[in-house]
Amino acid sequence: MKVSIVGASGYVGGELLRILLGHPNVEIADVTSNSYAGEFVHRVHPNLRGQTSLKFVMSDPQKIAGSCDLIFVSTPHGVSSGFMSQLLETGQKVIDLSADFRLKNPDYYVKWYGWNHKCPELLEKAVYGLPELHRKEIEKAHLVANPGCMAATGILALAPIVKTEFIEKDRIVVDFKVGSSGAGGKPSLSSHHPEHYSVVRPYKPVGHRHTAELEQELSMVAGERVQVAMSAHAVNMVRGILGTCHVFLKNPIMLTDIWRLYRGFYGQEPFIRLVHDKKGVFRYPDPKIVVGSNYCDIGFEIDEYANRIVLLSALDNLMKGAAGTAVQNMNIMCGWDEKLGLTSAGLHPI
Amino acid sequence: MKVSIVGASGYVGGELLRILLGHPNVEIADVTSNSYAGEFVHRVHPNLRGQTSLKFVMSDPQKIAGSCDLIFVSTPHGVSSGFMSQLLETGQKVIDLSADFRLKNPDYYVKWYGWNHKCPELLEKAVYGLPELHRKEIEKAHLVANPGCMAATGILALAPIVKTEFIEKDRIVVDFKVGSSGAGGKPSLSSHHPEHYSVVRPYKPVGHRHTAELEQELSMVAGERVQVAMSAHAVNMVRGILGTCHVFLKNPIMLTDIWRLYRGFYGQEPFIRLVHDKKGVFRYPDPKIVVGSNYCDIGFEIDEYANRIVLLSALDNLMKGAAGTAVQNMNIMCGWDEKLGLTSAGLHPI
Amino acid sequence: MKVSIVGASGYVGGELLRILLGHPNVEIADVTSNSYAGEFVHRVHPNLRGQTSLKFVMSDPQKIAGSCDLIFVSTPHGVSSGFMSQLLETGQKVIDLSADFRLKNPDYYVKWYGWNHKCPELLEKAVYGLPELHRKEIEKAHLVANPGCMAATGILALAPIVKTEFIEKDRIVVDFKVGSSGAGGKPSLSSHHPEHYSVVRPYKPVGHRHTAELEQELSMVAGERVQVAMSAHAVNMVRGILGTCHVFLKNPIMLTDIWRLYRGFYGQEPFIRLVHDKKGVFRYPDPKIVVGSNYCDIGFEIDEYANRIVLLSALDNLMKGAAGTAVQNMNIMCGWDEKLGLTSAGLHPI
Amino acid sequence: MKVSIVGASGYVGGELLRILLGHPNVEIADVTSNSYAGEFVHRVHPNLRGQTSLKFVMSDPQKIAGSCDLIFVSTPHGVSSGFMSQLLETGQKVIDLSADFRLKNPDYYVKWYGWNHKCPELLEKAVYGLPELHRKEIEKAHLVANPGCMAATGILALAPIVKTEFIEKDRIVVDFKVGSSGAGGKPSLSSHHPEHYSVVRPYKPVGHRHTAELEQELSMVAGERVQVAMSAHAVNMVRGILGTCHVFLKNPIMLTDIWRLYRGFYGQEPFIRLVHDKKGVFRYPDPKIVVGSNYCDIGFEIDEYANRIVLLSALDNLMKGAAGTAVQNMNIMCGWDEKLGLTSAGLHPI
Repeated sequence: MKVSIVGASGYVGGELLRILLGHPNVEIADVTSNSYAGEFVHRVHPNLRGQTSLKFVMSDPQKIAGSCDLIFVSTPHGVSSGFMSQLLETGQKVIDLSADFRLKNPDYYVKWYGWNHKCPELLEKAVYGLPELHRKEIEKAHLVANPGCMAATGILALAPIVKTEFIEKDRIVVDFKVGSSGAGGKPSLSSHHPEHYSVVRPYKPVGHRHTAELEQELSMVAGERVQVAMSAHAVNMVRGILGTCHVFLKNPIMLTDIWRLYRGFYGQEPFIRLVHDKKGVFRYPDPKIVVGSNYCDIGFEIDEYANRIVLLSALDNLMKGAAGTAVQNMNIMCGWDEKLGLTSAGLHPI
Repeated sequence: MKVSIVGASGYVGGELLRILLGHPNVEIADVTSNSYAGEFVHRVHPNLRGQTSLKFVMSDPQKIAGSCDLIFVSTPHGVSSGFMSQLLETGQKVIDLSADFRLKNPDYYVKWYGWNHKCPELLEKAVYGLPELHRKEIEKAHLVANPGCMAATGILALAPIVKTEFIEKDRIVVDFKVGSSGAGGKPSLSSHHPEHYSVVRPYKPVGHRHTAELEQELSMVAGERVQVAMSAHAVNMVRGILGTCHVFLKNPIMLTDIWRLYRGFYGQEPFIRLVHDKKGVFRYPDPKIVVGSNYCDIGFEIDEYANRIVLLSALDNLMKGAAGTAVQNMNIMCGWDEKLGLTSAGLHPI
Repeated sequence: MKVSIVGASGYVGGELLRILLGHPNVEIADVTSNSYAGEFVHRVHPNLRGQTSLKFVMSDPQKIAGSCDLIFVSTPHGVSSGFMSQLLETGQKVIDLSADFRLKNPDYYVKWYGWNHKCPELLEKAVYGLPELHRKEIEKAHLVANPGCMAATGILALAPIVKTEFIEKDRIVVDFKVGSSGAGGKPSLSSHHPEHYSVVRPYKPVGHRHTAELEQELSMVAGERVQVAMSAHAVNMVRGILGTCHVFLKNPIMLTDIWRLYRGFYGQEPFIRLVHDKKGVFRYPDPKIVVGSNYCDIGFEIDEYANRIVLLSALDNLMKGAAGTAVQNMNIMCGWDEKLGLTSAGLHPI
Repeated sequence: MKVSIVGASGYVGGELLRILLGHPNVEIADVTSNSYAGEFVHRVHPNLRGQTSLKFVMSDPQKIAGSCDLIFVSTPHGVSSGFMSQLLETGQKVIDLSADFRLKNPDYYVKWYGWNHKCPELLEKAVYGLPELHRKEIEKAHLVANPGCMAATGILALAPIVKTEFIEKDRIVVDFKVGSSGAGGKPSLSSHHPEHYSVVRPYKPVGHRHTAELEQELSMVAGERVQVAMSAHAVNMVRGILGTCHVFLKNPIMLTDIWRLYRGFYGQEPFIRLVHDKKGVFRYPDPKIVVGSNYCDIGFEIDEYANRIVLLSALDNLMKGAAGTAVQNMNIMCGWDEKLGLTSAGLHPI
């Protein structure tokens, strides 16, 4: 099958390329970048030197639609909603990695992103592309809205527990620690190595946009309003997110309850690993362990003293947090084995 | 004045030495280390090469008491409570950097540390050595129990607000991010560079010992029981702690209220800086900015949406979190300018 | 085909496991570790959680020989020479990742390693396992001695040029920068995160053992004695080696000569990439770019002013510097496509 | 005494400010920055929050000259040569931290920097500001040209040995490893954290400008032409430079010769430490150990096998490599104790 990537010069675009070049069922048609059109892909993604002789071309979504069977769109927020209607009219299937079709309520784009949505009629048709929650809908979707990296981290940690009556649903704190690749490939003072090295910078202690996705999906799972108090910190690593979810208990819970709940919810999910060992250095999730893989590791601990559960989830923001889930969605949409192209273990140590 | 350091080969001991070698009013008598007795100090603390020709001697607290006017004790938890009574009988003033005299309730040593305290009668006499809360008592103290690094970080962030009626006092989440020097100088698998580099490891998501100190001091300030839900994460830096305190509101608050509250509480404190800028990369506290200094930076943000305040505090765990505060306590006990030896700005960038 | 790994709990063993679990033609029979016998593999190699349910078994090379068709030996230096004769008598093919069979001259084990070799008669039969130099011999070998990581880095950079008359062969400086995984999985003060972070530590400025391998192989290629002045530095990364080779010119050389020479020497080599771009951040080799891949990137620059060429080579010490080359050797010994299991691009950014 | 800093918003300017704020004999008059004029200093140098209430002013060298007794100039290369004549006419003493007055031969500005020098007549009057070589001239200088950071590192390592007949003076290799602050405060793709983290990037393997300074000063010391083959690598730290100097022997040398030579040359120098221990992790120079201090650590090792000496030097590029030496020069020019303001030990661990 032929696929194209619109907006392929960013970190997510590069990761898509890396995965797709090793995917047995696809061939890459076009990769677009207006800034790098005409350049070899390895000028921007140096790891791909020797893996492909592709060059970037200018972005012309319509034209690209003609040359492939599925399109990944990895443009900045606010761009794809400008051309998505026309693109879908060509009959093309699209996986959009930007935020433009993640939220169901068009008012939330005004509230959280500060702009009016250009084609609100597509919001209901778009499927939120988290396979663990929406696999059946993704199978039949024409437009998949790939989740935000922090949103995915938080949703996967919390979905099983918000369905239950164990916890307070209006007091959920999610404290994120994020690698520098999450802010993209464009240099700035905040990403300048002398300023970012050794940092624990609370760059968005309140008001992060991913709150909207987190609450939308968790409320849907819970069947009632779930309220999330989210904070985001930049730390000294490149890839990875740890979400630490502090949840207060309404009813007493035991470790066996949590195991049963999470095993029941995630059952045979190929990319969810439950991590709660009794000893050792690796007994809880840590983004370091999932770098380069499509896993989301989920762990937990009960704090009887403070009447709290701590839920922990770790993933690679460019993989399970973006390109990995996008390819997983493609596999589902095409009726293929969901793990195709995504079976790599992470690297350790790294 | 002559001072000695018992247990001077650890990171806290080395930092004490570094500060004291530059302190105008003190002379160092003895530095003890049973493992390194006979070795030059710079074999263990290479930064001090050329700054001193001191050698470590064996630890004999009694003998050491005879040769100096004030003793810093920086032994592992559970050690100093074995010899403190005898030491104090010599009339010596002591600043203990271990946990042995921080808690007032002897039962808490059983609960949080797993051992029975050897001289519970001293617990009431010991002064919890956080100048911002106990300056008057420190002036007259014979035994000062220097705070734990995470405890100090959390207490300084929360003390002003727990005195008020703005917040829920049984739902306070404190999420810590800690540098590797906090675990001390002894190698282990968890501190092995290939295993610690790029890590965001939730090594103690529940049940951390500093909870006891945090609650003791905050409850004292509040005049009622304060409950803290604490989690600790190891991150990829050497020095520094960030405490992110998520506090739910009972009554509405405005930024001007917080400014007034914190300015009022900390007033002329020489080592507290309030950090809340409207723009720029450095608008909130970050441990990177205080490395090498004795500052605790405190910031805040209101989250109207989630009905929460986020309080942020950052300090250098070896300075304001240990040796810096210890020297500040010495200055107070001796009636000197509290800032002596402690005026260095942090290094930037680092 | 069934393969086993003797000494599978180290970093090289873990990397072998990771590659072999994804290799289409092999099945893993036994993985041994005396320290971790009985434990699941993922307790030591947490990235492999969910990828295998193997447990470590005790090392009994004879018994293991019975259950598989090829054995990787990844024991500490000086161990495998104690059991190799018996192992080979079982008819087993062996790839030894330790130093025990790399050197042809038994006296060099006394000189560089400080011990007498236990079965010097095997040294001539062993093939130095660098496919780029010894592919034909590897095809027929029963015992392959996999190269040392720094040696491989230096040999690959220098082999083409030492065959020529352009350079002085007794004045070759090779300055290595090495990641922390190169020193193995055992914690020590020098690998303790607070002591290793931000380091540029010249831990072996002279007298490094890999000098012997470097000179053996380069002299063989050159057809005359080649002398290498080698220095090794530890830097703040986990994986990767950069070798900077400073070579003085006897005869003038031009860029086109170097391109022709290296293209001619490495021609269709699947894992050698020549990197010399005119612009951009990625114009020379950098270990960061090859992490997780089996590539060795080689670059060069002429210094007319100082009458020198600088040759640069970068590889991932656990991949092309150890486990990757070992699997490449296995593929060659078995007559398979040399790239099987080794086609991953590196991760970028990382 | 009143001093001003022209170009105070860069990293070197910030470090000057930090030192001078703690210097007992000086008061800061003006700090200029055209980009940040009107802003508080701590907006750019966040470590100085609470240490000063200075604001940046526009750069007007003439006007500034009127308000102080000594000026530090820290402008980009090529700027200060445009206004230096006028500045000196005001009778002002100047310490220039740019490259504009370091080289004696005006042709070298064309060759190494690519521009014609605007006031070549000042080149002979300017004193190269390395106190260890030019203390007497600095005492009387009106214009001091502060050394380049890598040049200083290499000169201090090599000066004692190039005076002797032990070594080949046309085959000196100096391989530098440099922290990210050395490239300044302006973000770029090469300094973007995701691209710079874990890097060992040979960004200037040949043709580095500091070669000119290195050779000028070493040739002067040697009394004959010294030729340096220099390469520069960016590594994953913020502050610090390690220079590894590979020098071939013409005549045999012993460790005692080197000790005698270097002790003789550096004698009572306050900021040179000789580091060559027989054991331990800290037995050679490492930039990590000097961060925040004004020390240059120098070590050495003999390589009998390869007929080579390796000389190692480490310094903090912002301190002994720039601002620290500049303040040392000021102290000398003013007849004060040379160590004033510069006695801090480095931080360890960091």
